[in-house]
Amino acid sequence: MQDRSDAVHPLDAADPLSRKRAAFELPAGVIYLDGNSLGPLPAHVPERLAGVVRAQWGQSLIRAWNDHDWIDLPRRVGDRIARLVGAASGTVVAGDSTSVNLFKVLAAALALRPGRTVILSDTGNFPTDLYMAQGLRDLLARGHELRVVAPEEVAGALGPDVAVLMLTEVDYRTGRRHDMAALTRAAHVAGALAVWDLAHSAGALPVDLAGAGADFAVGCGYKYLNGGPGAPAFLYVAPRHQAEAVQPLAGWMGHEAPFAFDLDYRPAAGADRMRVGTPPILSLAALDAALDVFDDVDMAALRARSISLCELFRTEVEARCPGLVLASPRDPQARGSQVSFRFADGYALMQALIERGVIGDFRAPDIVRFGFAPLYVSHADVLAAVDILADILDTRAWDAPRFKIRAKVT
Amino acid sequence: MQDRSDAVHPLDAADPLSRKRAAFELPAGVIYLDGNSLGPLPAHVPERLAGVVRAQWGQSLIRAWNDHDWIDLPRRVGDRIARLVGAASGTVVAGDSTSVNLFKVLAAALALRPGRTVILSDTGNFPTDLYMAQGLRDLLARGHELRVVAPEEVAGALGPDVAVLMLTEVDYRTGRRHDMAALTRAAHVAGALAVWDLAHSAGALPVDLAGAGADFAVGCGYKYLNGGPGAPAFLYVAPRHQAEAVQPLAGWMGHEAPFAFDLDYRPAAGADRMRVGTPPILSLAALDAALDVFDDVDMAALRARSISLCELFRTEVEARCPGLVLASPRDPQARGSQVSFRFADGYALMQALIERGVIGDFRAPDIVRFGFAPLYVSHADVLAAVDILADILDTRAWDAPRFKIRAKVT
Repeated sequence: MQDRSDAVHPLDAADPLSRKRAAFELPAGVIYLDGNSLGPLPAHVPERLAGVVRAQWGQSLIRAWNDHDWIDLPRRVGDRIARLVGAASGTVVAGDSTSVNLFKVLAAALALRPGRTVILSDTGNFPTDLYMAQGLRDLLARGHELRVVAPEEVAGALGPDVAVLMLTEVDYRTGRRHDMAALTRAAHVAGALAVWDLAHSAGALPVDLAGAGADFAVGCGYKYLNGGPGAPAFLYVAPRHQAEAVQPLAGWMGHEAPFAFDLDYRPAAGADRMRVGTPPILSLAALDAALDVFDDVDMAALRARSISLCELFRTEVEARCPGLVLASPRDPQARGSQVSFRFADGYALMQALIERGVIGDFRAPDIVRFGFAPLYVSHADVLAAVDILADILDTRAWDAPRFKIRAKVT
Repeated sequence: MQDRSDAVHPLDAADPLSRKRAAFELPAGVIYLDGNSLGPLPAHVPERLAGVVRAQWGQSLIRAWNDHDWIDLPRRVGDRIARLVGAASGTVVAGDSTSVNLFKVLAAALALRPGRTVILSDTGNFPTDLYMAQGLRDLLARGHELRVVAPEEVAGALGPDVAVLMLTEVDYRTGRRHDMAALTRAAHVAGALAVWDLAHSAGALPVDLAGAGADFAVGCGYKYLNGGPGAPAFLYVAPRHQAEAVQPLAGWMGHEAPFAFDLDYRPAAGADRMRVGTPPILSLAALDAALDVFDDVDMAALRARSISLCELFRTEVEARCPGLVLASPRDPQARGSQVSFRFADGYALMQALIERGVIGDFRAPDIVRFGFAPLYVSHADVLAAVDILADILDTRAWDAPRFKIRAKVT
């Protein structure tokens, strides 16, 4: 097996985005293909976060809410994310988890379609989205139905009873990408609203929420946005819904005048009404700093590099690893920034890869998933990863008892 | 005016808790009487948080969920808080905001009392609790009523229609403390459940959730627990409700088997079902580290010091500042760890105090509020603060235009 660790691939040498890798702290000996689970540490984040801790919290104490404008950080971070997902300033706020944000926007969307009872989703949605919809459905107890169909059946399942089409653009297992614009149009034609989860899209590929006409969206701060483990999530409210959309988590930070301490709730104007409790400043500050990396990134160039990386991986694996069956769409335009394969002993295979420094992840029942975050993964990484993967398969190195012990988190 | 900055008060010299002050980074020239808004930075937190950022996130990347057991951090932090609030291990989980946690436990409590329609609360509750109840009431649209009475009328308002008594133990403005045990008993006698908000209790005074028979509780991580701005909150579920209490924010982290990625939600056993999304590891790590300060603290001794500080402040202010009217109960047992006064130009007075280094806060319409966190406030601080307060009042120094410009956050 060739040592490729110091090789520069011509496709990397030619790409200005290759320089972005230096913005991240990546441990030696690791090829990190799991930025779709947890983005790595941007190199400048520790110092920035330490400054917020020591200078702002430590020295300004309570005064920092005004002096460092902590109070508007959810909106400032939201505006930075807005640029990456094709949304106007003032339509995105950061905070809470993706799950909690989904609850807010789904409830708001259902309330805008009072005569309809169906939440339409698909089996490719991330489970927590389906769970949150189930929780909301059960709480409402007004005859709503969560209808879950296969991804390819979504458009055909849109009917006059559908209140909300709730989808994740990029499937967490296969990377299959929905056509957001077409499905949103179809939802609107059917009289429904469209709620999009951008967990595997934001920071990975160009998203055009406004152009697609999306009604609401949510997304994740800790995957391709590199905001840190459990980073605050975000949500989007289309401008046309901002005056009437009311969400049920009516916390004081979504109040029109939080510091009037009135006894009655009055929603703030705009997307601010989607805020709930006191914003998590330390986590938000880490996400805010992490977003610096994107400041000069052209999303079309990012997408081109993503496709180049994914295609190199797919073609090499299909040529050299006959035991693996492609689980992702072959058409790069129909995928996000990941490539997945099926392998019966996928869990053990992934453990063997991780032991050799190639970190991807496993998704039950049999998927090994590799994410290619274009800001820090190189074409040289791709070839080196395939070398190791092929070697593990050729030697059946994965077939060892230590690789079959299931960890708590897979 | 006497310079007391270096004086050691005999009550401080005699108290072993005085040593705890060294555990905090307090800026020079500041007397911090606002730990009930935002606790100060524990001195060891920056290094611990930096370790989580650099070593865990930076080096372990996704593997940290297992290798550093991030996945159970909400429960581990919950167990540490449990000790401070009289709760058994396994009954408290940390995460989300106080507001979001209140929504969860209030919905769970209402579901346990299906024939009843009233949420009973009082005008001393923190507004976000009332807002969240209003949001839930409106979402349910099943004829629930939020009935808000004066604090002293709560017991008398418990009737056969009350499903849930929802109170904050310590009033955020006046510091008035409810009798948690007596009111919980009264709620139970009336057939209702009791939900307590411990925002101004946890870490400030002994709380005995189990002894009081509380059904559910929530609380704040960034006040007396010093977890940092917007730190994760916590919630408590009494052991007797853990098997049947179902909350509506049915996220994957509250699922029985999150990494099975099933399409259907099944709540986890115990309080874990109250979890929702991916835990905010950086914020949780800061809170976890901050809790170290409490490890060897006896809560009865803490309370004794709190009363001693508050009484010294109250008596000195009442003797020397005739323009201020006590807004807190005179009986220390009927108060939390704060003393508040009414003053018509309270906002300007507090701004003048802050300019002189005495940081408390103002609560509309006319309350100046001083929190006495016994771990870092000394009797010498109290006397020095009263010196400055009396001087500002005597000289009418507060009556300057610059003190009347309202900031965004008050």
